[in-house]
Amino acid sequence: MSGASEDTFRLVRNQGVTAPLGFKAAGIAAGIKASGRPDLALVFNEGPEYSAAGVFTANKVKAAPVLWSRQVLETGRLRAVVLNSGGANACTGPGGFQDAHATAEKVAETLSHWGTETGAIEVAVCSTGLIGDRLPMDKVLAGIVEVVHEMGGGMSGGTDAAHAIMTTDTVAKETALHHSGGWNVGGMVKGAGMIAPALATMLAVVTTDVSATAAQLDEALRQATKYTFDRLDVDGVTSTNDTVLLLANGASEKTCSQQELNDAVRAVCDDLAAQMQADAEGVTKRVTVTVTGAASEDEALIAARTIARDSLVKTALFGSDPNWGRVLAAVGMAPIALDPDAIAVSFNGQPVCENGVGVPGARGVDLSGSEITLTVDLAQGAGTAAIRTTDLSHAYVEENSAYSS
Amino acid sequence: MSGASEDTFRLVRNQGVTAPLGFKAAGIAAGIKASGRPDLALVFNEGPEYSAAGVFTANKVKAAPVLWSRQVLETGRLRAVVLNSGGANACTGPGGFQDAHATAEKVAETLSHWGTETGAIEVAVCSTGLIGDRLPMDKVLAGIVEVVHEMGGGMSGGTDAAHAIMTTDTVAKETALHHSGGWNVGGMVKGAGMIAPALATMLAVVTTDVSATAAQLDEALRQATKYTFDRLDVDGVTSTNDTVLLLANGASEKTCSQQELNDAVRAVCDDLAAQMQADAEGVTKRVTVTVTGAASEDEALIAARTIARDSLVKTALFGSDPNWGRVLAAVGMAPIALDPDAIAVSFNGQPVCENGVGVPGARGVDLSGSEITLTVDLAQGAGTAAIRTTDLSHAYVEENSAYSS
Repeated sequence: MSGASEDTFRLVRNQGVTAPLGFKAAGIAAGIKASGRPDLALVFNEGPEYSAAGVFTANKVKAAPVLWSRQVLETGRLRAVVLNSGGANACTGPGGFQDAHATAEKVAETLSHWGTETGAIEVAVCSTGLIGDRLPMDKVLAGIVEVVHEMGGGMSGGTDAAHAIMTTDTVAKETALHHSGGWNVGGMVKGAGMIAPALATMLAVVTTDVSATAAQLDEALRQATKYTFDRLDVDGVTSTNDTVLLLANGASEKTCSQQELNDAVRAVCDDLAAQMQADAEGVTKRVTVTVTGAASEDEALIAARTIARDSLVKTALFGSDPNWGRVLAAVGMAPIALDPDAIAVSFNGQPVCENGVGVPGARGVDLSGSEITLTVDLAQGAGTAAIRTTDLSHAYVEENSAYSS
Repeated sequence: MSGASEDTFRLVRNQGVTAPLGFKAAGIAAGIKASGRPDLALVFNEGPEYSAAGVFTANKVKAAPVLWSRQVLETGRLRAVVLNSGGANACTGPGGFQDAHATAEKVAETLSHWGTETGAIEVAVCSTGLIGDRLPMDKVLAGIVEVVHEMGGGMSGGTDAAHAIMTTDTVAKETALHHSGGWNVGGMVKGAGMIAPALATMLAVVTTDVSATAAQLDEALRQATKYTFDRLDVDGVTSTNDTVLLLANGASEKTCSQQELNDAVRAVCDDLAAQMQADAEGVTKRVTVTVTGAASEDEALIAARTIARDSLVKTALFGSDPNWGRVLAAVGMAPIALDPDAIAVSFNGQPVCENGVGVPGARGVDLSGSEITLTVDLAQGAGTAAIRTTDLSHAYVEENSAYSS
């Protein structure tokens, strides 16, 4: 997906936010989750620089930690990010906002106690879990003291943090990029459902030891999310809590061009998005829907998203059924320029429909594998876009009908 | 739902399109379905008038019978409607359109042979089933001769027709209205999935023996579908084949006001829509989502539809889970005027969220019954709208992953 040549950098999956120099992290079980599993994570920037940028949910109903973090990001500066699973702190009113504020204050106070003078305004807060309940603040605040204490400089701190932000995720998701220019990017993400445009219940923290300003990070993060997380669409649902943060500290003593930064951040986000798709709730098929020949890239994206969200297309794919008629019915609903008699469809590279009509053998295409590519050519122009999605399976229904109980 | 007082008319469910005077119908097994189940229906207007109106799918990909019927309806006149299940004749190219035309020609020729001089332009064609395959025209044409022969004047003809248009429907759906003014309306419908705004894989034929012009029928049908079929949204999918037809023959020798006609047609369509909701694919819950306090009726409708289509809301309802946080997350995605801190939500009349925050006991609301009302008040204005929908169940996934095989 990235425009960079392959030998400029390499990606490694068993490292995350602590792969770049000068970042520490930790993850612990603070008792927020009734299960006793890890639920509190901290990512700490040792400096010397503290540039940061963030992208947040487009949902009008924003969780308290989103309101808090969006506000502190206006400074373009972060020393730490504290993240909890086990509760979204969303739809919790003014009390919930006070909880988010108190969480940041406690992190600042504890870091200051250990010698790093920090203000709450330098601490972003991210939460994920059930919407509507207040957090057990006694456990959160006690956990913060512990997680700051636990924080180590090795790789395992980043991996512990990646584990502590999991909800219905079945695996921790992290990736690191080592650039030939002598600097690094690392990231972690959680999210397995409610993944839709403009993000979804996903939290991501990306770190880099290159020297970059907040404005440079903002540009890199926006173009990266546009082409990666924003084009992963599992169930069309956008969460109240989505947050993607990018922190830079210049610890490598290297600089890079904006394009190099863009490419590196996008490569990390793209790999994290691929890991989210593979771990999406109830997924049995990883599907890439590509629309070509649209009147514009925007129209291609609208068409690809409409197909990727169609319940009848998604259930057909679960059944390994090359039901191209449902694909045409889906794209016919998209508010775009369309000539039904010009559409071509292929599954896994095999044409199943040309000029709006099925081709012989279309029903026999083998979709039994776990990877499916679905390509729709509209023959209207040069616009192209791809959406990553999944099938709609029994397991999706099972997980989501039992989530809050 | 209707504005008419209850003693103006009464509804009866075991009668359909042949309840009004001067309409005949039949349904037979023509061998279009491999299962050998009934698959060909005819509705015949004996006159003396032949006024008609139609509403068709908004999907840009329109099946051949939709293109045909939309064309013949320009005359405002119909003598007969022929309907088949077992194949949608959609995405079948010019050959498919020729098949729809040949079907109408055969009906006209056969009716003419039996003494009713008829042209193909007086015959509407409706098809439903798998998209993308040509119809077995030898069976369709032979079936037409048989179905015209079978056509009887009794109630059973209407019921046979209602059975012959079923696909994944588990019950035939028909209803009749007897008006105190001495005239009648009858209707049948098929459709159990792919039900969304601007209709979906649903075919409906409504008949009346009142005297009305095509323009009067058109107004009555448009306002009826707007508030009934268009507000039933099972899976957000709009089909290639949706058709609703209204035929009038004046056989009662009665006339009525436009308002009386509107009310009667809407009452019949509303009852048919309720039957479709109850029989929707894989439904375990019948859900009505009502949004009040929106800035306008349009915004209320957008909000209600967004909630009704949300996979996470629908799976929660399948699990009898009063997960109001997912309702807020859903409505927060709607492109409407919204104050997250002013929203109130109730399930089955019990408040679960006020001013955007959960109320004590919200998680304990009992949703174990099969009927659920979900009401969301936005506190923005006076706009109100309701959408009928269903839960998202294992059975939905099962039926739709196996449909074309």
